[in-house]
Amino acid sequence: MSYKVGVIGAAGYAGAELVRLLLQHPEFDLTVITSNADAGTALADAYPAFAGASDLAFTTHDDPAVRECDLMFLAVPHTAAMSQVPALLDAGVTVVDLSADYRLSDKDVYEQWYGATHTSPELLATRSFGLPELFGEDIERAHALHEVGKPALVACAGCYPTATSLASAPAVRAGWTQGLVIVDAKSGVTGAGKGCSAKTHFCNADEDVQAYNVGRHRHTPEIEQILGKPGEVVFTPHLVPQKRGLLSTVYLQLTDEAADMSVEDMLECYHALYDGRPFVQVLPAGKLPRTASVVGTNVCQVGLAKNERTHTLVVIGAIDNLCKGAAGQGVQCANLVFGLDEKTGLSNVGMPV
Amino acid sequence: MSYKVGVIGAAGYAGAELVRLLLQHPEFDLTVITSNADAGTALADAYPAFAGASDLAFTTHDDPAVRECDLMFLAVPHTAAMSQVPALLDAGVTVVDLSADYRLSDKDVYEQWYGATHTSPELLATRSFGLPELFGEDIERAHALHEVGKPALVACAGCYPTATSLASAPAVRAGWTQGLVIVDAKSGVTGAGKGCSAKTHFCNADEDVQAYNVGRHRHTPEIEQILGKPGEVVFTPHLVPQKRGLLSTVYLQLTDEAADMSVEDMLECYHALYDGRPFVQVLPAGKLPRTASVVGTNVCQVGLAKNERTHTLVVIGAIDNLCKGAAGQGVQCANLVFGLDEKTGLSNVGMPV
Amino acid sequence: MSYKVGVIGAAGYAGAELVRLLLQHPEFDLTVITSNADAGTALADAYPAFAGASDLAFTTHDDPAVRECDLMFLAVPHTAAMSQVPALLDAGVTVVDLSADYRLSDKDVYEQWYGATHTSPELLATRSFGLPELFGEDIERAHALHEVGKPALVACAGCYPTATSLASAPAVRAGWTQGLVIVDAKSGVTGAGKGCSAKTHFCNADEDVQAYNVGRHRHTPEIEQILGKPGEVVFTPHLVPQKRGLLSTVYLQLTDEAADMSVEDMLECYHALYDGRPFVQVLPAGKLPRTASVVGTNVCQVGLAKNERTHTLVVIGAIDNLCKGAAGQGVQCANLVFGLDEKTGLSNVGMPV
Amino acid sequence: MSYKVGVIGAAGYAGAELVRLLLQHPEFDLTVITSNADAGTALADAYPAFAGASDLAFTTHDDPAVRECDLMFLAVPHTAAMSQVPALLDAGVTVVDLSADYRLSDKDVYEQWYGATHTSPELLATRSFGLPELFGEDIERAHALHEVGKPALVACAGCYPTATSLASAPAVRAGWTQGLVIVDAKSGVTGAGKGCSAKTHFCNADEDVQAYNVGRHRHTPEIEQILGKPGEVVFTPHLVPQKRGLLSTVYLQLTDEAADMSVEDMLECYHALYDGRPFVQVLPAGKLPRTASVVGTNVCQVGLAKNERTHTLVVIGAIDNLCKGAAGQGVQCANLVFGLDEKTGLSNVGMPV
Repeated sequence: MSYKVGVIGAAGYAGAELVRLLLQHPEFDLTVITSNADAGTALADAYPAFAGASDLAFTTHDDPAVRECDLMFLAVPHTAAMSQVPALLDAGVTVVDLSADYRLSDKDVYEQWYGATHTSPELLATRSFGLPELFGEDIERAHALHEVGKPALVACAGCYPTATSLASAPAVRAGWTQGLVIVDAKSGVTGAGKGCSAKTHFCNADEDVQAYNVGRHRHTPEIEQILGKPGEVVFTPHLVPQKRGLLSTVYLQLTDEAADMSVEDMLECYHALYDGRPFVQVLPAGKLPRTASVVGTNVCQVGLAKNERTHTLVVIGAIDNLCKGAAGQGVQCANLVFGLDEKTGLSNVGMPV
Repeated sequence: MSYKVGVIGAAGYAGAELVRLLLQHPEFDLTVITSNADAGTALADAYPAFAGASDLAFTTHDDPAVRECDLMFLAVPHTAAMSQVPALLDAGVTVVDLSADYRLSDKDVYEQWYGATHTSPELLATRSFGLPELFGEDIERAHALHEVGKPALVACAGCYPTATSLASAPAVRAGWTQGLVIVDAKSGVTGAGKGCSAKTHFCNADEDVQAYNVGRHRHTPEIEQILGKPGEVVFTPHLVPQKRGLLSTVYLQLTDEAADMSVEDMLECYHALYDGRPFVQVLPAGKLPRTASVVGTNVCQVGLAKNERTHTLVVIGAIDNLCKGAAGQGVQCANLVFGLDEKTGLSNVGMPV
Repeated sequence: MSYKVGVIGAAGYAGAELVRLLLQHPEFDLTVITSNADAGTALADAYPAFAGASDLAFTTHDDPAVRECDLMFLAVPHTAAMSQVPALLDAGVTVVDLSADYRLSDKDVYEQWYGATHTSPELLATRSFGLPELFGEDIERAHALHEVGKPALVACAGCYPTATSLASAPAVRAGWTQGLVIVDAKSGVTGAGKGCSAKTHFCNADEDVQAYNVGRHRHTPEIEQILGKPGEVVFTPHLVPQKRGLLSTVYLQLTDEAADMSVEDMLECYHALYDGRPFVQVLPAGKLPRTASVVGTNVCQVGLAKNERTHTLVVIGAIDNLCKGAAGQGVQCANLVFGLDEKTGLSNVGMPV
Repeated sequence: MSYKVGVIGAAGYAGAELVRLLLQHPEFDLTVITSNADAGTALADAYPAFAGASDLAFTTHDDPAVRECDLMFLAVPHTAAMSQVPALLDAGVTVVDLSADYRLSDKDVYEQWYGATHTSPELLATRSFGLPELFGEDIERAHALHEVGKPALVACAGCYPTATSLASAPAVRAGWTQGLVIVDAKSGVTGAGKGCSAKTHFCNADEDVQAYNVGRHRHTPEIEQILGKPGEVVFTPHLVPQKRGLLSTVYLQLTDEAADMSVEDMLECYHALYDGRPFVQVLPAGKLPRTASVVGTNVCQVGLAKNERTHTLVVIGAIDNLCKGAAGQGVQCANLVFGLDEKTGLSNVGMPV
């Protein structure tokens, strides 16, 4: 049995990565891809990497084929997503939304950080948060809806929150930490999106590292929500000269009790949480993740280093920002909602080099 | 039905790429990977991108498991390959060899360019040359051996010859050209191999372009053999600052007759040859290939530009040097020899970005 | 004694490189920088690399300060240059023009390739072509004008023609070659300019090589003019993933006579031409240029490789496209016109790494 | 008046950068460059960027010419430096040491972190620490020795400590902060040195970010010494895919009092400290440093961002790790010791692109 699926906003980077995954997915049949700006353009003209793999062309968001799908992925910016989600749900289409519109459970926090009025806050209480390894019950709830023939809404976690939380949540949830959570993250330039600007010009981004949006990046409240640490996250994203790959280095102050634990003991707790999950790999003591190891995959690699001198724990998570940080996570969530193996159509084998 | 396969020389870049493909191949069951230098090391320790995907560890080349395989891929340097191939064939193992040892049909040419004595020249007459789109009959011959239970030997084309020939052979075979074939090729640094040297140090290779082995690169006679142009190929390889991706720009002097043909007519001939082959994509007039479009895939993109002023044809081919230029071509050949769809386990969907 | 100088079009990459050089020039006093689009912006805001080095801000092209200068560098696009040059000359200002407007001595060739009407063709007969190592008499003529208090016009050679010609002109002028000149060149992305577009987006340009404008790049007739080979140059530029650095690989067919010369003999002729010129370095036999060695300098490194099998000569030139390929060459020309040592304010010491 | 100078360990990256600077220095005459491993090799053969700029060749460390110099720069690894420094001082040669051997004032701390016995601890009390903007009195002391004809020893600060301290020391010294200093730094691959290894192989370093030596990097005690915060620095270095450029992002917890200060007030204090120093640029509120802006220069750009929600101050410093982080700082120190303008031979004009 296969499902008809589509991607709204398929011309952007996250949308195109969804297309890449869905073209190779054995159960999801990609039937419609939309982009108001690129409507009429053949997919392979926009992305030559898809030449020979698909004859699809972009249509507009209001293409009637959209509502005939079982499942729709949304890869449009915030506010654009919420302008379409309620109608899709009304039409019985399950929605996996990669935007920020339904991530934050508190509408006020959303409106404060995103500077926009939320037009369907009633959905926030019932939407599922899409980060399966940490919010399994959310996905189960969405799956239960699917089982009874009702559409579900999944709001996938953002790229920085995914890497940051998969690395740090086990420690925070275990109560080992106190005080501020300091998150220093580094992302490849795909994270800045497809838009052409001075920031994304090769000659500016190449051979350069810089921080941006220090203290005011919108992923801050999302990380705080996931970790249950409102007002306690300091988050500094950086741009590094590579296409894909996001590394989040998180600094946690240990409690006196946790300061006595060995890294090996800590890793055991991580393994207890993540073993059996194909997309989180906990590295052994002494090893740390690299972004190159996960590019193209839906994997998050997690490593820990304990600093005995200062009683701090440094946890590091690496993901492909477009895959586990966006499109791959969306497909993983969709697999689970539709009762498929979560690995269906997703790779956990990276490029060796 | 699945086949037991192995990779000899699995720790190098081409070998590791074979491992990546074979771990995801539905019919080939990777059971043994060898590396004399890395014997005992877990695959995931050598290549963290394979963490969670395999528990294999490297053994030595003389691992008895090698001879129990149906199919062995060789990814060792020239001369090292021919030291093992005859015994493998004697043991009934089909061999797909990525080295140069059996590519050149004339032992004297081999010995002159490689500076080594060929120890099993008798195999040169019967081996199949592994470039299925141009040497289909070779692969059919190997398949026929397989059908009657006999081991076959496939000598896969090299990376530069693959991109160069897929782009230029249709024009040369059609008799449109005369005189020298000038090949200016650009390869990513994986082409220089895994060895650590000044040449492969990041700080030398980054932000640099340079030619190397001008006029004496060993792929020259291989290109000449494929094109049937002995002594008429000028080949200049360059190193460019990227990991994967090889672009070959070929300059062909047109005959008076061919100088009157339109690019569209020429493209029609290309399509006649390549349509139906999943891994060669002929681009429409006005479009030219980029290496980024084919990275990670087994695809070769080919484009043509005709220079009316000078009666020259510029043909350009782009491949992933480790995939269609090495491991992917090996798997494609093996698929065909074993009677599988040539696409089995191979992607023609690239990364959009 | 110091001269008042300015840069028109100082906000683009070539203009900014001029600013970099002029801020450190001991005899030229940079007093005005213009950019209609960026007028009012402080230089250091547009280019943080100039923070602390200059308090200049951009003004518009019609800034009266322009005509008070002794020397004006033009770094505006073609057609924009010729709209200003005659008035500058009338005002007594010597002009060093980096655009293409006055490079081609034949107005018809200009109009054919650039698709624009030349509005001051009368200047073509008297302008000096700015490539001092090959057109020394042109620069001397400009210097003679300066000596008698008259303004001179120097049309600097383009980036591709500079690297290509410095490498190949000695061989062509010596009569060693016959037939077509095949030029395969590779440029960093600064060559594509400061404009933001899909082509210059980091995520497109990074890890990619591609050819562009094959057979129709406007530097073709300029190379033909320099080499005296009308209609005989095949030129294919490529974009490679680095900021600066341009390598031109030129394929020349040798005459029977020249085919008997050794590389050493050929190099001797090159040395005879270039020894004493600080910015052309002829590499010894067996060595070839790399772009990384010349980045930031006004140097062109030249190397030769003779292909005995095919009687071809492969000559390679490497430059920093923004320096010797644009701004540095402009300053070098200006130095000579104003009677200064040609090295004044220009470096021939590159970055070791 | 010019001084005879030399570089011991000139073949490594920091040594070669010293050579680059000294070849263009108007007062220091580079007369000897040593490298035991490369003795006999011409400088331009090891570094083609120096072709045409120098005829020097490497000699061995015991070259008698070394002791005839007025000033010797040491760019050898720790322990190798202290094996030579006492004899140089005895011979009356002033030493600017880029190694770690004399940076830490407490011999025990040195021996603990570097795992080596200090063989000349008596020099630690009198050596000058080479970070002129923060330890001006140290350099004055060295200059005073020079004035009376005695040799001085300057131990230059390391790359990470330089960027980290120039950014954070003003805040720490002002008493605005409390608790741990969390330093998350990102360095280009030149920081890993010239040695060829898996870590520095292009195919590993390109398109990758990773942390290394977490919690145990030897620059930790140096940062603690500079900031006067023993045992309170958490330091995580990362490797990013670029050649040069180091960004240090420092997280400081503000005291209640300082939490009320505006960024503007804080910047004023920074300006009070740094104005007049040509190599520290304090960026205005809202601007943050980029590594690309300082590559090739001796500049450190510093930016501040205050996080009101968490009462933290994020300070960021950017340097060229080989220049202000090594060779440039060495030349700056030497200039001051010899009574020259500290800018002599050093650029504060970066590459615009």
